[in-house]
Parts: sequence; C-alpha cells; structure tokens
Amino acid sequence: MPDLSFALADSDRALARDLHAQVAELPLICPHGHVDPRLLADDVPFADPARLLVVPDHYVTRMLLSQGIPPGMLGVPARGGAAVETDGRTIWRRLAQNWHLFRGTPSRLWLERTFTGVFGVDTPLRAETADEVYDAIAARLAEPGFRPRALFERFGIEVLATTESPLDDLAAHAKLAADGWGGPGARVITTFRPDEVVDMEFGGWPDAVARLGAIAGEDTTRYGGYLDALRRRREAFVAAGATSADHGHPTARTAALSRAEAAELYERGLRGEADATDAETFRAHMLMEFARMSIEDGLVMQLHPGSVRNHNRWLHTTHGRDTGGDIPQATDYVHALAPLLDAHGNDPRLRLVVYTLDEYTYTRELAPLAGGYAAMYLGAPWWFLDTPGGLRRFREAVTDTAGFYNTAGFVDDTRAFCSIPVRHDVARRVDAAYLATLVGQGRMSPDEAAETIADLAYHLPRRVFRLDRGASA
Amino acid sequence: MPDLSFALADSDRALARDLHAQVAELPLICPHGHVDPRLLADDVPFADPARLLVVPDHYVTRMLLSQGIPPGMLGVPARGGAAVETDGRTIWRRLAQNWHLFRGTPSRLWLERTFTGVFGVDTPLRAETADEVYDAIAARLAEPGFRPRALFERFGIEVLATTESPLDDLAAHAKLAADGWGGPGARVITTFRPDEVVDMEFGGWPDAVARLGAIAGEDTTRYGGYLDALRRRREAFVAAGATSADHGHPTARTAALSRAEAAELYERGLRGEADATDAETFRAHMLMEFARMSIEDGLVMQLHPGSVRNHNRWLHTTHGRDTGGDIPQATDYVHALAPLLDAHGNDPRLRLVVYTLDEYTYTRELAPLAGGYAAMYLGAPWWFLDTPGGLRRFREAVTDTAGFYNTAGFVDDTRAFCSIPVRHDVARRVDAAYLATLVGQGRMSPDEAAETIADLAYHLPRRVFRLDRGASA
Amino acid sequence: MPDLSFALADSDRALARDLHAQVAELPLICPHGHVDPRLLADDVPFADPARLLVVPDHYVTRMLLSQGIPPGMLGVPARGGAAVETDGRTIWRRLAQNWHLFRGTPSRLWLERTFTGVFGVDTPLRAETADEVYDAIAARLAEPGFRPRALFERFGIEVLATTESPLDDLAAHAKLAADGWGGPGARVITTFRPDEVVDMEFGGWPDAVARLGAIAGEDTTRYGGYLDALRRRREAFVAAGATSADHGHPTARTAALSRAEAAELYERGLRGEADATDAETFRAHMLMEFARMSIEDGLVMQLHPGSVRNHNRWLHTTHGRDTGGDIPQATDYVHALAPLLDAHGNDPRLRLVVYTLDEYTYTRELAPLAGGYAAMYLGAPWWFLDTPGGLRRFREAVTDTAGFYNTAGFVDDTRAFCSIPVRHDVARRVDAAYLATLVGQGRMSPDEAAETIADLAYHLPRRVFRLDRGASA
Repeated sequence: MPDLSFALADSDRALARDLHAQVAELPLICPHGHVDPRLLADDVPFADPARLLVVPDHYVTRMLLSQGIPPGMLGVPARGGAAVETDGRTIWRRLAQNWHLFRGTPSRLWLERTFTGVFGVDTPLRAETADEVYDAIAARLAEPGFRPRALFERFGIEVLATTESPLDDLAAHAKLAADGWGGPGARVITTFRPDEVVDMEFGGWPDAVARLGAIAGEDTTRYGGYLDALRRRREAFVAAGATSADHGHPTARTAALSRAEAAELYERGLRGEADATDAETFRAHMLMEFARMSIEDGLVMQLHPGSVRNHNRWLHTTHGRDTGGDIPQATDYVHALAPLLDAHGNDPRLRLVVYTLDEYTYTRELAPLAGGYAAMYLGAPWWFLDTPGGLRRFREAVTDTAGFYNTAGFVDDTRAFCSIPVRHDVARRVDAAYLATLVGQGRMSPDEAAETIADLAYHLPRRVFRLDRGASA
Repeated sequence: MPDLSFALADSDRALARDLHAQVAELPLICPHGHVDPRLLADDVPFADPARLLVVPDHYVTRMLLSQGIPPGMLGVPARGGAAVETDGRTIWRRLAQNWHLFRGTPSRLWLERTFTGVFGVDTPLRAETADEVYDAIAARLAEPGFRPRALFERFGIEVLATTESPLDDLAAHAKLAADGWGGPGARVITTFRPDEVVDMEFGGWPDAVARLGAIAGEDTTRYGGYLDALRRRREAFVAAGATSADHGHPTARTAALSRAEAAELYERGLRGEADATDAETFRAHMLMEFARMSIEDGLVMQLHPGSVRNHNRWLHTTHGRDTGGDIPQATDYVHALAPLLDAHGNDPRLRLVVYTLDEYTYTRELAPLAGGYAAMYLGAPWWFLDTPGGLRRFREAVTDTAGFYNTAGFVDDTRAFCSIPVRHDVARRVDAAYLATLVGQGRMSPDEAAETIADLAYHLPRRVFRLDRGASA
Repeated sequence: MPDLSFALADSDRALARDLHAQVAELPLICPHGHVDPRLLADDVPFADPARLLVVPDHYVTRMLLSQGIPPGMLGVPARGGAAVETDGRTIWRRLAQNWHLFRGTPSRLWLERTFTGVFGVDTPLRAETADEVYDAIAARLAEPGFRPRALFERFGIEVLATTESPLDDLAAHAKLAADGWGGPGARVITTFRPDEVVDMEFGGWPDAVARLGAIAGEDTTRYGGYLDALRRRREAFVAAGATSADHGHPTARTAALSRAEAAELYERGLRGEADATDAETFRAHMLMEFARMSIEDGLVMQLHPGSVRNHNRWLHTTHGRDTGGDIPQATDYVHALAPLLDAHGNDPRLRLVVYTLDEYTYTRELAPLAGGYAAMYLGAPWWFLDTPGGLRRFREAVTDTAGFYNTAGFVDDTRAFCSIPVRHDVARRVDAAYLATLVGQGRMSPDEAAETIADLAYHLPRRVFRLDRGASA
C-alpha cells in the first residue's frame, strides 16, 4: 500500500506509520456517498470487471476522453440507445493500453489497491497483462464471498449512507430494513437530497414538484403545500435511517426571503416564468428553509456548491448527466453564507457541513467561518480534491484556524463500492502523516496525535453526522 | 520549543537549527501591534491568568464559540452590561477542558510557549491540570519580575509600536516619554491609525470628525480643515515617536479624485447622505491623500485590507467589535492599487507596506507588484495567516518574484503582550527552515543564509519601518 | 548545480538524482520562446556581459527598480532617446552591488548557472568580484565557440521556435533556411503570433491591419479579406517551419459570433469606433476563428491570458513595452473557454495549449478542463511561475486530475538565449524530484518514473507541439 508519508523527514515516518497502524482496522464510517442501495438490497453478484470498474467511473472515462478515447468506446451508455462498446474485455484492454495516463492520479491508486486489496490480484496492469488481470478479477466476482453484502462486511463498514431524491420511494431501503440491514441506526441508511425538486433549472421541475406532492400526499400547487411535502418526505427519510440532508447547488448563496416573496417566486417557477436569477434566488431561499427544517428534525445539513454542471455539453447530450462533464468554478462563501449564518450560525442545534471544489477559499473563508460559527463544519475534500495531495493541503490550510474538531471527517462520496476501503485508508494515512509532522515539529505529543487520528477516522464523523444516536431516531 | 523544520530532509535540519541559533537572541523589533500603551505607562501587575490569556484573545474565544461555548461563559464583556462569567478559575477550567480543540493551531503554540517560556510552567495543560497551571501562573503574576516593564526587558524588545486613533490624546505615550520609555527613537512609540475618522461607515462618523477638529484645533466642517486636522495629528504622532501610519480598509481600492470631488463627497458624508459607494470612494481617495502626506512627513504607510468586519452579527451585537467575528474576503490588489501606484509607486520617498488576508494573491498580484514598484513592500502574514504554515507559504510564494528584500520583516500585530516572544521566535524558525531549504537545494551559500536571516529578523524591519533613524525624527 | 530535491526524505533523493541523470543529456525541445531569430541567422558574437545578461532581462531590471534603481541606470533604452547608462562595466557593477536582492529568486539561479555552466566562471558574484566576473565572461564572448550557433549546438538544442508577428517578413528565417538551419523540420522554426493585428487596443491597429493586407496580398478593408490575409500568413509561417500559433490576450474569453456580427465589429474597429468591450469581444471571437484555422492547417494553438500589460505606466512611458511593468490578474477559464470548448473541445484535431499566470486556478479549473476535453493541454508554468517552486506546485496541483499526459512539457519562453539550458535543467530536476516522491509513496514503479521523466523532458513536447512530423509539413 502507498506510504504517503510525504514531506516527512525520515525520522518522522516511523511515527506516521505507527499512527496509521493504530486506526487501520477501525470500522469505516461512510456518512455520504452514492452507492446504489439496490446493490445491497438485492445482493446480486457484480457484472464483469469492466462494468464494475470502468464503465460507471467518470474519473476513468473522462481521463480517457481527454486523450481522445470517447466514452462510447468504453461502454458508457448513450442517450437514445446509440450503439456503444458492449464487450467487457475490449473495454478493459482499452484501459490497460492507456494505463500510463493515470500515473500520479488517485484513480490509479484506487484501482490498483482495489485489484490487490479487494481481489487479491497483484499482477501490475499493462497492455500485456490486461487479459490476465481481467480473468483473475472475473473469477473472483463469481465467488459468493465477492457479493456486495459479503464485501460490505469484509470492508469493515459500520454504516453506509446512500443518497436519494424525495421522489424515490425508498423501496430498496425498505427491503434492507426487512433484512435487518436498513432503518434508523442500521448498517445502510439514506440521505435526503432534494435538488431536483428545488432547482427550477432542472428539466421538468414543475412535473417533479407535482410528483413530490403525489408521493407526499400534499398539495404542491401552493408554496405552503410544497414545504409541507418536503417535511413529509424528510420524515420518511428519517424513518429510513437518514441522519443528514445534502444540497448540491451551483453557488453557496443563501437568502432570507419573506414567506410572501418565496411564495410568489415559487408560483412563477410553476408557471414556467422564472429566469436564471429567480432560480438562484429560490435555491438560496430554500437553503434557509432547509436550515429551519434541520433545526426541527435534526437532519445534518450538507452543502456541496461550486460545480458547473454539464460544462462539456457534447458529453451531456451524448451520454447524459454525471459522466465527467462537470467543471468547478470560483465559489464565494463569506458573502453567500452570511444570511444563513446570520440567522442560525450560532445555534448549536443546526449542523451545517460545507464542502468545496475551490480550495483557494480554505484559509481565506472556509476555515475562518468554521472556526467562528457554532453551526458550521468543514466537509472533507471532495471530488477533484479527494486525493493524497488534496487531503494534505486541506489539513495544512484549515487546521490553523479551524483546528481538527471543526472538520467533519472523511467521506468517500463514491459510486464505486469497491473503492471504499482504499479511499478511507488514504485519508487515514494522510492524516497520520500530517499529525506526525506536527509531533515532529514539537507541536503535539504522540499521545495527543494518537487520540486525534482515532477521532478523525472514527469518532468525529460518527458524532458530526449524528450516527452515534443508535436506533432511537 | 517547536522545531518547525518542516519539509526538510534530516540532512538540512542541522543547518536550520544553526541559522535559528544565530538570531534567537537578537532584540525584537515590533513595528506594528495592539498592546495597550497604558500597560507599559502604568506598569501595574497583570490580573489573573484567565483575564491575561483567555478573555481578551479572540483567537481563543472564537474557537471555543465555534464548538458551542459562548463568549459570555469565557468572561468576554457584554454590551449593555449583561452578566458574564467573572471567575477567572472557572474560565480557565473551560479552556483546559477544551484544550484539544486547539491542537495544530497557532494559539496552542503561543499559549504553551507562554506557559513555559514566560512563566516557567511546564505542566501540560489538560482538564486535570487546570488548577495547577492556573495557580502557578497566578503566583508568577504577583512577582515584581512579571510586571509589564520587567517583561518588556526580559523579552528583549528593542522597540514596540502601539496603535492609536487620531482622537487619542496620547496621554499614555506622554507618560512613557516622561519616564524615558517613549518618544522619538525610544522603546515605546505610537502608530497613526485614522480609520474611524476616515470611514463614513463607522457609527458616529460626523461626531468623530468633529472631535478630530477639536483635538487638532482645525475647522473640520470643511474638507480643507479636515485635511489640516489630519496633518496636525500626524505631527503630534511623529512627536510621540510614530514612524508609520496604518490603514485598515475593507478593500485595497485607491482613487485619484479632484479636490472638488473629494470635498463634495466629504460634505455629503457630514450631512449623513453618503451611501456605501460614496464611503468606499472616499476611503479610496483618502489613501491617495495619505500617500501624499507620507511623502511629506515620512511616515511609512501600512495598508491592511480585506476584512469583512463583524460578519458574525450576533457576536458584534452581544459583545462588540474585535471579539472574533471578522471574516476575510477575496481581495484584488492589481486593479485596486493601480491609481496610487501610478501616482507614487516609483517614488522611493513613499514606503507602502501592504498586508493581506487573502494568500491566494501572493504569486499572482502581491509579489509581482512588490517586485516591480520602488515604493511597495510586502507586510508579514497577518492574522489568520500568522502561523508556521502561513509564514512558510508566504516565503515559498513571494520570494521567487519579490525576493527577501521587498518584504518588511515580521510584525506580531498582537494585543497579547506575553505572546510577543514566541511569535517572533516562530517567524525566525520558519525563515531559518526556509533558508536551510534553499541552501540544501544549492541555491544559496550558508554565509548568505546567515546574513539573510539576520536581515529578516532584525535589520530589515528596522530599515523598512524607519526605526533606524534614532531620536532625531 | 542546484539539487532541488525539495520536500524529499533523504531516502528518496537518490532516486531523484538518478531519474534526473537519465534525462540530463537528452536534447532540448524549445517549442515556445522569444529568442531573436537574427541572432542565429547572423551568428554575430554577443556584446558585453551587461548587454547580454542585464539590459534585456526584465526579471533583473524590475527587481532592481523595486529597490529604487531605475532602468536608465542599467542601460535600458529610453523612449525618445533620453540618455541612459552606456558603460557595460558600470551596469555590471550595479548588478553585483545588489546581488543580494536576487537571493532565492530564479534569476539568481539562471544567472549563476549561466556564469558557471555556459561561461565556466565559478567565482561567486559580489561587489568585490564584479570586475573579475565581467572580464572573464567578456573574454569568453570574444571566442568563436561562444557565438550563437556554436552555443546552440553545445546546449544540445534539437529545435528552437522563435515568435514572430504576421507583419514580420520572416527574412531571418529565410536566411536560416538558406544555411540549412531553418524551415519545416529544421533546427530553428517560427511561431505565428498575431496579437498586434487582432487586438484593437494595440496602438495603430488599423495601420497594422492595412500592413497585414499588403504583406498578404489581400484586401483587409473587409472582414473576409482580413481572415484570408491571416490564412495566407499562416501558410507562410508553416512554410517557415511553424508548428504552432500563440495568442496573448488579457483574458481567456472566447465567443461564438456570427459572421455578420464579427464583420460589423471589425469595421467598427477600422473606423476607430470600437470601445474596450468591442475589443474584448473581437479578441474572444478571433480565438474561435483561430481554432477553426488550426483545425484546418494543423498549427497547435497556444493561449497565454491574464497579463495586465503596462501596469507600471511610468515604466511604459519611459522605456516602452516588455520592460517589467506587466502584472498578472485573476483569470477565469471555466466560463471564458466554454464557447470554444463547446464548439471544438472534443475534436482531437484541435490542440489547444493553455497557460496561466494565475496558479490559483490549477485544481479548480485548469486541471479539470484539461482532464476532460480531448483538445486541451496545460502549458508549463509561465513567467512569474517558471521557478523551482512554481514548477513543483504545478505538478502537485494538476497531476491528480490531468495526469502527466495532458500537460505539454516545459517551454523556456525566454529572450535570454544563454539561460535556455539551465531553465530546462531546472524543470527536469523538479520533475525528477516529484516523480521520486510518487515512487517513494508507492504510487509508481521506478520503471514507470523513468519512462515518464523521458516523456516529460523530450517525447511529450515533441508530440504535443507536432515537432515529430519531420520536414514533410
């Protein structure tokens, strides 16, 4: 496994390794991610190696696209049913032939460790070994010990949160609960992610809102009924184990609108008359409403701003959303969050976990905000920043002002179930190295470092995401 | 003491330690700070450990607030006289119980070193040792050797600049001068900080301007009299030893207004009719006026932009200014400073020291500007950036383009008198480590590194802040 | 030579040195720079050391200006023929007396290595050795082995691209071709840099456009003729060996105008009626036109945005352009490049190499764009960022998302012919150290690192800049 003791004098590396060893076997806390709950509800075997590890991984397919290999050649489904590569082995060979493109990337790290750590395949991947590695993984996938629930247990996952829309009927979670795997305090829980019923710029928003009314049994033709419908769905999500909500907005803007202003905006949206500014204002206002709901029902509020969705329009047109065509943008927090923090930032009942794709806000905005408001926590480095270097820079930048205890712990944020162990392990190794640096600088005792690494790896995410409350909910 | 030889190969650490040892005992030059001059004028013993080290330190109280402990529980005075905790020992225990929150922060470093280096208390602070540490420090505070002037001499401070408003009568500095401690070229000097009479957005600005007229003996109902009043007060400050002025603005904007435009804006402000844009324009214009005054009277001009004051409005409403509720914002320098630099940037008579809370301008704006204009120097990393990591990143980012000699040397910028030695020592250690890295890379000889570290620690701030001119003023 | 194995444990340094040794003698690929082609066409001896190494180097003269030594005292020619220092030895002494200002800067590194590596002068420069170093270099400059073509061969340059305007008659390149040094696939080639005929804000733009028409034999009074003239000049540049075009714009904005809109804008500019917004829109549109031309004629498209030209207006007024008065500004890529990438970003026939002066876009914008569009590559750290630290931060920031193979390889971008070897060597050392770090972290095998360093140093720039196509063009 990678050492990742970077920027360490040789004399500090031993401590880094020792700190890592102390937490390497702690259970995994996965409070935010995108694993399909049907995977664990149905527990059917995984398909072939390419469909498991290449086709759905937009980190992998976008890198290959960047060197001229279109997603269709990698089996990524095309809209309208256009033909794409269907042979898993062919897709796998394309990965192997271009394996050098991934040198130095986290994808390389995650995949390689998945090969060795999950599947026990130690042959280094390259064009000549493509078939050998493919066949070895395929053979494992046919074994019962490699079905999702068996892997879940082998990975040492204590709790895994998936992410669902309020329009989801939570049937997979009901199945999990029936099997003793789901529900409040259980191993697999859900997360309330309402973007598609909040963001007027999503295609078909009025329809989505109507469906929200239907599933919640509320009249969403009026704003009051819309809020009630959201409350009903949050209750259903809490009953399915949710301890948090998640909001993915283009910006971090929040706004304090009056009830009348919000209602007027809502109705304009339903009539299809809202422009981009209206949509932004409504999203900003709804974050304030969701903060109020979180104070009422206790769901931790996560905010993921700053992605320009579908920047690569050809990719979106050809292959749809979430295929690697999103690009971050500069994100303001200090002004954008001011209305929400002004209203609720000093209220310890609210727990607001803020993420970023723009690391050039760490020392200027995010650390000072998290280190100065009782409600705010910093989410782990996300997406393009969830890398050994990104995780290290996060600690180096935010610890000065926010310390360790205003951060929320690692989240793997992944669709790639088999990459969960390595992602957590990388975070633990990076934190161990950072703490060893502080000990080496004489800024912390080894005992304190040991306590801190255990907090970061296990206790802190359990507490921040309210996973330590058992099944009482 | 912390080693701080970070990112160094073991083979370079010895040189870092040797370089630090060469400057560890050099006198401290403190050209910018916020120590209350009455402390040294009156030389009365410090109060209890909590009132000395917790209550007035907004780094400490904001971190505790961020984890739900309100400032009132820490003895921070409340507006309107609301009750707050008054028992020093209780406050101290709250700090000790939450000491883990400060792991990895500069506050931890500063406080711990204050305990050991200033008070000789080596017991590590934790909940169980709270009383022991409190009692030990309290015992020391009762000794004559721990009164302010004795500590000043023990700390090896050569010169300490405090910061006063033009509305201050400088009585404390007069007392210091009478005792042989104050005045031009003396140990304790003042700094001219006119924000409250310049910024129309300060509450009661017209009253402040009227008081300025009264104290200066000028008619500030007219703009010309206002400028004259500022000149009179600068003269008084120079007579009290000032060698610099300081300007804390929300942005770095400067503007070249005509006399008539400025006068009209000024009168609008006096009538209470100025809006936010007017206030910003007037501040921008006044920086240009102050540059002209600096060229005339020789006061070094410091600019501290980029803080959103009182972002945490509840904190401001409840406990007032400077209690930890300010947050930085993105700051433009390249366009904002252009008018001033266009007028005076190539004039070596002007000395403009620019600070930032936005380190994401170092390589893009600040280093190119300081490395290209004769008048401009870079101030030391400030506030949230005055940390081992922040100081290191500053050198790594700005040295390429600005070198060492367009930087102004370390400033401690502190209200916390007892933290002055450790703050300077941290800066000296970080610079020693950075220079050792350059020597290790073969980019500088050890002799050059030795000369440079002495310049950075002592000679450069004396020269840049014009503290090397003796008592002639 | 500097080690530059920074942030490396001692145990990794040996590998860094070994990796560097493997590529230290590879030929230099110089696909982007500003060496005057007449230097090599005429092959006349260089003037004295000051005129070679000080006077034309704005890195050097701006640093001295920043400490109060005006460019006239360093022999920088003044507009209008005002008197400047003419004695090379006097200029050299001024450099030597202020040599400490360059500690830690890349100029120090480049010059020192030029003294030792190119001229064999090992005496460290300081005030006392100024004459000794000057005389030793001057003696070498008189030898035949130190004429430009001899140095070119000694430096191991395989190909050097100079940069010319479409208004240049390419006479120097014709001379080079006649001597067997120039033309397609030869040692010295040109680059098409049309800024002065594209940017309406350049003084005398209508005249420049008229001259473009004359040299191309097209009627540039109409927009269609203007495009044709540009195409004709591109053909001439291709015939002179060009494989790339270069565009230096204030921003990265691109725009998709209709033919009619573009024509109208063009004519407004010719009439002298275009304002700043018109000029920006026209530049943005022309990048789209140039992308189309690049797809047709195969010239690699380079984009250098983000410099505020002539920020130091006094310097510009007194000494003209390119004398050190430009300052970077914050640069948006994600929105600015969207129109161009939307039109051609997934087309592998286009090759767009994007540079930046704003490194605070690396992880947020540039790496995600280059790692997600087939056409886009990241140019090497440029200008203020072409430093050991800047090169290192580039790899640390962009590799996670763009890998190594979406970067374009090092470009020296220099007017300073004698600094070419050291600049490339610094880049190779930094890459070797970064790769050694990855190997040390267990993220890459030593064999892969060896292959990668050779790619970065040699194979990748040849391929990206289409220098591997021989003389067929």
